Amino acid sequence: MSPTETLAAYVVNDDGSTIPEDVWREAKRAVLNYLGCAMGGSIEPALDVTIETLAPFSGKPAASVLGRRESFDPLHAALLNGIGSHVHEYDDTTPKNYIHPSVPVASALFAYASANNVSGRDFLHAFILGFEVESRIGDAVYPAHYEAGWHITATAGVFGAAAAVGKLLDLSTRQMVWAFGLAATQAAGIREMFGSMAKSFQPGRAAQNGYTAALLGRADYTAGERALEGPRGFAAVTTGEYDLSKVSAGLGVDFSLRDNAYKPYACGLVVHPAIDGCSQLHRKYRPDPEAIAAVRLRVAPLVLDLCNKRDLRRALQSKYSIYHAAAIGLVRGKGGLQEFTEEAVADPALARVRERTTAIADDSVGEDQVGIEVELAGGETLSLFVEQSLGNVHRPLSDEQLEEKFRDQAVLALPPSQVESLIEQCRQLDSLPDAGTLARATIPGAATRAVSAVSS
Amino acid sequence: MSPTETLAAYVVNDDGSTIPEDVWREAKRAVLNYLGCAMGGSIEPALDVTIETLAPFSGKPAASVLGRRESFDPLHAALLNGIGSHVHEYDDTTPKNYIHPSVPVASALFAYASANNVSGRDFLHAFILGFEVESRIGDAVYPAHYEAGWHITATAGVFGAAAAVGKLLDLSTRQMVWAFGLAATQAAGIREMFGSMAKSFQPGRAAQNGYTAALLGRADYTAGERALEGPRGFAAVTTGEYDLSKVSAGLGVDFSLRDNAYKPYACGLVVHPAIDGCSQLHRKYRPDPEAIAAVRLRVAPLVLDLCNKRDLRRALQSKYSIYHAAAIGLVRGKGGLQEFTEEAVADPALARVRERTTAIADDSVGEDQVGIEVELAGGETLSLFVEQSLGNVHRPLSDEQLEEKFRDQAVLALPPSQVESLIEQCRQLDSLPDAGTLARATIPGAATRAVSAVSS
Repeated sequence: MSPTETLAAYVVNDDGSTIPEDVWREAKRAVLNYLGCAMGGSIEPALDVTIETLAPFSGKPAASVLGRRESFDPLHAALLNGIGSHVHEYDDTTPKNYIHPSVPVASALFAYASANNVSGRDFLHAFILGFEVESRIGDAVYPAHYEAGWHITATAGVFGAAAAVGKLLDLSTRQMVWAFGLAATQAAGIREMFGSMAKSFQPGRAAQNGYTAALLGRADYTAGERALEGPRGFAAVTTGEYDLSKVSAGLGVDFSLRDNAYKPYACGLVVHPAIDGCSQLHRKYRPDPEAIAAVRLRVAPLVLDLCNKRDLRRALQSKYSIYHAAAIGLVRGKGGLQEFTEEAVADPALARVRERTTAIADDSVGEDQVGIEVELAGGETLSLFVEQSLGNVHRPLSDEQLEEKFRDQAVLALPPSQVESLIEQCRQLDSLPDAGTLARATIPGAATRAVSAVSS
Repeated sequence: MSPTETLAAYVVNDDGSTIPEDVWREAKRAVLNYLGCAMGGSIEPALDVTIETLAPFSGKPAASVLGRRESFDPLHAALLNGIGSHVHEYDDTTPKNYIHPSVPVASALFAYASANNVSGRDFLHAFILGFEVESRIGDAVYPAHYEAGWHITATAGVFGAAAAVGKLLDLSTRQMVWAFGLAATQAAGIREMFGSMAKSFQPGRAAQNGYTAALLGRADYTAGERALEGPRGFAAVTTGEYDLSKVSAGLGVDFSLRDNAYKPYACGLVVHPAIDGCSQLHRKYRPDPEAIAAVRLRVAPLVLDLCNKRDLRRALQSKYSIYHAAAIGLVRGKGGLQEFTEEAVADPALARVRERTTAIADDSVGEDQVGIEVELAGGETLSLFVEQSLGNVHRPLSDEQLEEKFRDQAVLALPPSQVESLIEQCRQLDSLPDAGTLARATIPGAATRAVSAVSS
């Protein structure tokens, strides 16, 4: 069988019984992390603008938009979920292929599940399969595809969304092959858009387009049947170098969810080791910011290439400042959304530490590492070397850390009681009779209303 | 100014006053040809399936779908118009870049105009500008982009649709630059889908996506501002070789509409010379099919590579048979949609001539040429050499021939009186106060209803 057929048959025939327990567990963690990002991004202008612009074009508002009071038809909801959950670039990453894998798949699935009855178990199963399809197609074309300028999260993501929704729609293998063809022919998104609202539009559109591909596939809308491997198929057209054996090698045995990483900090990845290490020093010594005389960092050379910003004029710049990274770690012991706001940039304690921080590039320091020396006013020196930064695949966030990250974002959209209730429902996702209740529980005020209904 | 800004500023600032009269006239011809194709394709399964599948997702049905009774929101209507008008591959072509230019632009414009009040003059102006944007971007990346496997009609078409709708939405130059960015990031469609329903989906999606890009651009949804020329922009990412000077050279002076060609026959382009020549012999001599003893063709070698199909089992195959081409020309004197049906394939007179036709490849015969010898039973021989096939840019279809082509397709969807009324309205498009009346006049029964309303 061809790579396209192999993947289609796998998605169609897998009944979930041989998926290992750790993969199911990781899927729940990925969904929790995804939902937190969707909450955190739900109040962003990119989402406001899209909602306002496309509202007149929405069909029957059968689907919730995560974290919002507005409802849309499920296809639009998929787009909007994707914009909201990616806009802060705080979502997950598989470092092996640079894909942010959950957004295209989960954005489509939550839209589908909020308008159709899907059990929590089936939802997670479809998520695992969609994640796997997307990752394997990404693996096959990475790195040449990404280096050519494709936003691989979107171009591979559209296949993942098609697979996930196609699984729930119960497509035949032939129909899934067509859905993959329709996904291939909508695969788009270029890195030139990075730094603009159009970036988060891309994985949103991938979710919506993959969902559409599954709908049309089920209706026997035909497509070329060599979506991936054809001479004018996805791989050949979008990149010079690819290896489609990666699509099928270990299929059903190796799962990409095991390679998934969650950002602990809401900023550029290369400054994560510094925040991590400085946060460790904060927890251990609680140094008084006023007493910090100097901070000296040894960093991978890439860090100074990308994040050598000292004069911060906009909040966004703080996400790419190694000096700000050290300051928030030492002063606040964390790097959540609140550490990269205008207020944080203006915080005198942070500014003081930033000004006293220097960084030198050191070839012997890896990108997941940092050397830190903090000189205190009394002459004492605190020092630490981070070998593996928190959040990389070798040092994953604990469940508690993931939940803390979730809270940090969700409180921007929801009252605290609703946040806790949402976390609890995420923990139980695999036993929920209807995964759509989770989507509806993200509507601001939803839990509060439920509580008052009970108490009145 | 960059190529992207140059093109955006041109579209925004052009007031139409310097567009030559022949370009306006050619625009009307292109729209007539487009509408005919939309009528001919309006009863195709690809359109039925899409309408049925996406109807539950449509917003307020404010826009007509050309040739159908169903209405959809304008974005869906743009998609559906695109599928219907391209599905027979009978739409126009600019041979210089292999784009079928009218479908993405006009599909979006008719959707827009049927839901918003647009004068016929403004409609045509936006059409000319969208056509030009699409063609120039296509010129800049052709041929490497097309040879790499991109369906250039869709990938360049999305820019044309964005420009056309953006003009009517009165975008600023900055907003148009963003709309082009959003178009670039949705540019998709691969040639692997040729021969399936997914092929016509591509220019439809381009129309819908370009329309969306214009809406979001107007709402200040930001995008990367180097859509075309950026190091990870449309040109660099999708092709190794390009020349962006073609975007601006002669802008406002040279118009791609002058290079537009209309297929006279509903089949593969390379058999057009044979149909043309045989139809000329039919008109001149009216040979009795029973009296045709042998037909000998000298054709360009490419013809036998692509169209050497003698044993026709499906109607679609007849579109790629040089033998069928000779037969329909000699027996019927035409090559409309009715000449490529199951009935036509089974027609004994056509089968008889097909069987008696031979073709040899001759390097001295160009792709627009054919040598024909018809031997009659009495021993007489009719012969003809076609130097320039009808419908190429040097021998364009006359207005009458375009209208005849329109009729041939439109009668599949509409009663004859409505067809004539539609042709009349196309002739007057530039003076129509509301171009949307033209879209509504394509609804089956619309004209008939109007007539009976008057007479009752």
